[in-house]
Amino acid sequence: MKALRWHGREDLRIDEIHEPAPRPGEVTVEVGFCGICGSDLNEFLVGPGVITTDPHPATGGLAPLTIGHEFAGRIVELGEGVSDAALDDRVVVNPSISCGRCFYCRNGQYIRCSELASIGMHCDGGMARYVSVPASSLHRLPDNIGDDVAATVEPLTVAMRAVQRGGLKSGDTVSIVGAGPIGLMTLLMARAAGAAAVFVVEPSPVRRKVASELGAAGAFDPAHCDVAREIQRSTPGKAGTDLAFECAGAPAALKTAISSTRRGGSIVILGVFKEAAELDLNEVMQCERNLLGSHGASDSLFDPVIQMIADGRLDPAPLITRRISLDDAVEHGFRALATSRDEQIKVLVRPGNGSI
Amino acid sequence: MKALRWHGREDLRIDEIHEPAPRPGEVTVEVGFCGICGSDLNEFLVGPGVITTDPHPATGGLAPLTIGHEFAGRIVELGEGVSDAALDDRVVVNPSISCGRCFYCRNGQYIRCSELASIGMHCDGGMARYVSVPASSLHRLPDNIGDDVAATVEPLTVAMRAVQRGGLKSGDTVSIVGAGPIGLMTLLMARAAGAAAVFVVEPSPVRRKVASELGAAGAFDPAHCDVAREIQRSTPGKAGTDLAFECAGAPAALKTAISSTRRGGSIVILGVFKEAAELDLNEVMQCERNLLGSHGASDSLFDPVIQMIADGRLDPAPLITRRISLDDAVEHGFRALATSRDEQIKVLVRPGNGSI
Repeated sequence: MKALRWHGREDLRIDEIHEPAPRPGEVTVEVGFCGICGSDLNEFLVGPGVITTDPHPATGGLAPLTIGHEFAGRIVELGEGVSDAALDDRVVVNPSISCGRCFYCRNGQYIRCSELASIGMHCDGGMARYVSVPASSLHRLPDNIGDDVAATVEPLTVAMRAVQRGGLKSGDTVSIVGAGPIGLMTLLMARAAGAAAVFVVEPSPVRRKVASELGAAGAFDPAHCDVAREIQRSTPGKAGTDLAFECAGAPAALKTAISSTRRGGSIVILGVFKEAAELDLNEVMQCERNLLGSHGASDSLFDPVIQMIADGRLDPAPLITRRISLDDAVEHGFRALATSRDEQIKVLVRPGNGSI
Repeated sequence: MKALRWHGREDLRIDEIHEPAPRPGEVTVEVGFCGICGSDLNEFLVGPGVITTDPHPATGGLAPLTIGHEFAGRIVELGEGVSDAALDDRVVVNPSISCGRCFYCRNGQYIRCSELASIGMHCDGGMARYVSVPASSLHRLPDNIGDDVAATVEPLTVAMRAVQRGGLKSGDTVSIVGAGPIGLMTLLMARAAGAAAVFVVEPSPVRRKVASELGAAGAFDPAHCDVAREIQRSTPGKAGTDLAFECAGAPAALKTAISSTRRGGSIVILGVFKEAAELDLNEVMQCERNLLGSHGASDSLFDPVIQMIADGRLDPAPLITRRISLDDAVEHGFRALATSRDEQIKVLVRPGNGSI
């Protein structure tokens, strides 16, 4: 079968590889759609970052390997000993694999596992027609969620994790700095969690428009206004939002996120930073703000996200702006996102033979 | 009467001023002891910082004014309408005065009042024999706490606030970076709150010795060892403490505090920073750490601190290294702290005629 494999920076290739067979405890999934994540793009443009060129301690995996960790599909083969999954089950896959032995795994915090591995980064992922994954990574899909929308479940769990980390309460006001896929998903998730008003800060007019269509109470261009002041004006009394989400991974964005929050407010950091940020910590200390890191997603969040999509409270469909075949994945997926990032939000790849 | 008044940077003077009379709702306190706080020293060395040279919106106060906000004494006169205090009551004073009208005051978060004022910064404070203060700022002292120890109650509430902000739980491991008065008080408070082991990071050998005497499980010199690695070694499994307190207000100290904590750990920032800090935010994001600002103290914490001193769980007496008269306050207090800071921890001034 064909697979999109990462060989090195700027070196993604369509390789011909053997179809995988499930090992004991695994199932083989026929992938319906697999999304391109910002971290995949990062591996392409400036990697290796998360991908290792040495064998990963948890999976033994090393490059070259099939990329892709945001995917959903159908079970086509069961490995030995798998009893809680059935052929033809439609599933989304939690890509995180933890060691099970360290302090964090022993205490139910597997997301903090010091040897955490990811399918699509440390072993073959979803950018191929078939992939074998542990049965313990599966979350069943209801019939009313298609494989395309289901491919957004994984990044939506990242947004849900961030909303949980920030302790968002019904009625809170929220600022989101950076309206890429994760920022926009955090907007959807914050509204679904009861946020009273969500303000979005984003330089791209295309993305600001999408943010407004998705229910943002305001969408500000940081190049053309004093965003913190606008948000302070929009939150009378408190003079700032209760909660901000930094979804850009940029020092200037973090400063905006901090100054957009009220005294005692929290700033959740989701962005991956490419450079050190110079901060005036007195803005944190004197105003008793909280800077809270949020990373990845907990296995326990997949089913709630699926539930909220199924019953209509979350609708990520508008975020899917392009569906392409595996052959087009590099040119119309990775390169398109790299060169004109704000024209696309979520690009999905169809690695099999189904219609796009 | 004599009063130690701030006129400007490097300009503290013993002035002769009128004895204050209590306004309605106020009492006059004869000050037993008044401590010199790091923020007082800051006003002396690089002020005006907190002190305003314009009238403060809440108190109308402006320099020159009597400095000092860590004090205790005895009520000698009651203003009109004061019914919940009596002559000769021994009291400690909460120096914070909030506006009572803003969003934060209306929602019980007066410490976040946007017009928060402090006795000794925005109106006359404790470095004089008599001071008039609102009756609502008083906390009664039991007989077994002397005025000297009582003068440490205010900074101890700052330490208690920090311990609360960090969510310290019984059994937690803790690192404290910077063993000045606030760092050492945080050590006492963390142990009183059930911390299993507290590691202190401090360049001064004198202060490291005090930290060990006060119960630190380890006291590390950042100039001579890789502190984060030592603390990681001392916390097997977790590879880092649950909680760190940054009590130095220095970028290098904050980096040490962050890297000394485990994944998912919290770093409480108490220090006042004189410069911007350059941080790798991925250490916050990827390890899901929390940076939590802590500022000042809540009125509700004075009575619990008094209770814990009274029943012996907190003993701040070893932190009092010098007691001086008002006449000696500048030379043997402020200048001594400025030039050989690590020889003194808490210096107390006796503004009246009592014995030192």
